[in-house]
Amino acid sequence: MIRTRITELFGIQHPIAQGGMQWVGRAELVAAVANAGALGFLTALTQPTPEALAKEIARCQGMTDKPFGVNLTILPTITPPPYAEYRQAIIESGIKIVETAGYKPQDHIDDFKKHGIKIIHKCTAVRHALSAERMGVDAISIDGFECAGHPGEDDIPGLILIPAAADKVKVPMLASGGFGDARGLVAALALGADGVNMGTRFCATKEAPLHQAFKDAMVANDERATDLIFRTLHNTARVARNAISQQVRALEKEGATFEQVRDLVSGQRGKQALESGDTEDGIWSAGMVQGLIHDVPTCAELIERIVSEAEAIIRGRLEGMLVQMREAA
Amino acid sequence: MIRTRITELFGIQHPIAQGGMQWVGRAELVAAVANAGALGFLTALTQPTPEALAKEIARCQGMTDKPFGVNLTILPTITPPPYAEYRQAIIESGIKIVETAGYKPQDHIDDFKKHGIKIIHKCTAVRHALSAERMGVDAISIDGFECAGHPGEDDIPGLILIPAAADKVKVPMLASGGFGDARGLVAALALGADGVNMGTRFCATKEAPLHQAFKDAMVANDERATDLIFRTLHNTARVARNAISQQVRALEKEGATFEQVRDLVSGQRGKQALESGDTEDGIWSAGMVQGLIHDVPTCAELIERIVSEAEAIIRGRLEGMLVQMREAA
Repeated sequence: MIRTRITELFGIQHPIAQGGMQWVGRAELVAAVANAGALGFLTALTQPTPEALAKEIARCQGMTDKPFGVNLTILPTITPPPYAEYRQAIIESGIKIVETAGYKPQDHIDDFKKHGIKIIHKCTAVRHALSAERMGVDAISIDGFECAGHPGEDDIPGLILIPAAADKVKVPMLASGGFGDARGLVAALALGADGVNMGTRFCATKEAPLHQAFKDAMVANDERATDLIFRTLHNTARVARNAISQQVRALEKEGATFEQVRDLVSGQRGKQALESGDTEDGIWSAGMVQGLIHDVPTCAELIERIVSEAEAIIRGRLEGMLVQMREAA
Repeated sequence: MIRTRITELFGIQHPIAQGGMQWVGRAELVAAVANAGALGFLTALTQPTPEALAKEIARCQGMTDKPFGVNLTILPTITPPPYAEYRQAIIESGIKIVETAGYKPQDHIDDFKKHGIKIIHKCTAVRHALSAERMGVDAISIDGFECAGHPGEDDIPGLILIPAAADKVKVPMLASGGFGDARGLVAALALGADGVNMGTRFCATKEAPLHQAFKDAMVANDERATDLIFRTLHNTARVARNAISQQVRALEKEGATFEQVRDLVSGQRGKQALESGDTEDGIWSAGMVQGLIHDVPTCAELIERIVSEAEAIIRGRLEGMLVQMREAA
């Protein structure tokens, strides 16, 4: 087992989080992660209404007595969801940990803090991390170029982003994007993070509520089988490469607007694909780490494996490199 | 000190290499790296003729009695340099370590091996590493998306590329691209590499034979101040962002051919800029790691710092995370 500032801050056993994921961040997965001693987050906007979110939180509370959190992602849309009501549902449900992401989170942060809720803010750049720290968040989840979903527009991978952030950020920090095994966890800790966040890797677990076809695809795909879409809109997303993602990229290359590709990439269509199991009939997120995913374990098996192998890397591999030298000297 | 398969293979003190760098890989830098116990490489094609290379090797041999190597990069050009003659100069000079890179190295590998020379092949993809391994190289230098110069076209960062390669490559492996400090070295070792190769970081040392203005620029620049050029030509290069790189990108966006940007990016112009110290008057390579570079030490200071801090990360930070848990249990 590994204790860090993140395990201390959130009262969890292992420095591993399963941050917010649209459609996938439901009670089945979050409770399994929590019961395995890591930190899962329900995704607020996966629920159609604040009332539905309150019910999902209650359902998850019925499945675990360990800490878990809720993700609230604030998107700059023209007709925004009722964020304040979602926030209120989170607070009233007795949730003590929230992951925020997105646009101008100050009001939410202030209100959560007033209610004694600890906040980890997910962002993709050092300057955004510092801005969130100034807003008063308790921790940062710094998300590199490798990640599924929105890597931002700077294209800085974790190998650079994590130490660059660690040089400046004072609060505890999770490294996100590209993590899926013990090697990545130890690397993140060496680079200055206090733990890792995993998305794609948790999607390829037995408890993740998505069709088996997607889990099989993540196991089959290598690290090159992702596409960046919406770069031309400055709203880049990393998704699994399939017929639709390639079509979107081709249209973007020709100068298509969002309106022209909207039907191809609608969230509902992605949701339907996740449910139907047709991995070619919708855009779905996957990180480069799928190249390192070779099986579909339970969350408990996955977390136990990562932590025990990480200990072996530190005490065996890394220390062995030092010890051998001493013996030879 | 840290002993790995790479230090064993090449008979060096530290698992750190300074691979081939056009214009910069000269005797001053390579001898300083060698004398500090790491593995430096002269760059063959920096010398105008095979005879000049033989002289440069002799000059370097006069400056150090430690092992050093020569880089031979094979480019698919219409009028290629006399590669076989460069190779002959390397062999006849008594060099025992060669770094190959580029296009179809089999003939060179065969001849070097016949003369008892150890070969490390630099590449940017797992499939290329496996191909080089089949050709008989002794080690691989696997170069991620973060790197200066040519990252390839797959855009896979080290966090993914290193473990993906380590899962398949059997020979010892250096991780390259994005490395500049102890945190990166320990991360690379955790991810499955046997050491790191550093380019940009060695350019920002006292002994690197380039104008102080470039060293100051690397210290001043953050991790975002690089540009990828020549993506449209499938010959992507990561360079320091400046007026010229931005101009090239703008022209490429408009569909310019290589012929139309050739004058802007000529090697001679880059060389002149390096000598004149005008960081805005030519294309020059820099990796994202410049965001982690804050000083211009000697090579000996740099290497000593990286190795001693890496030992502290392993024995202090990482082990401490385990020990604390045991105490608390």
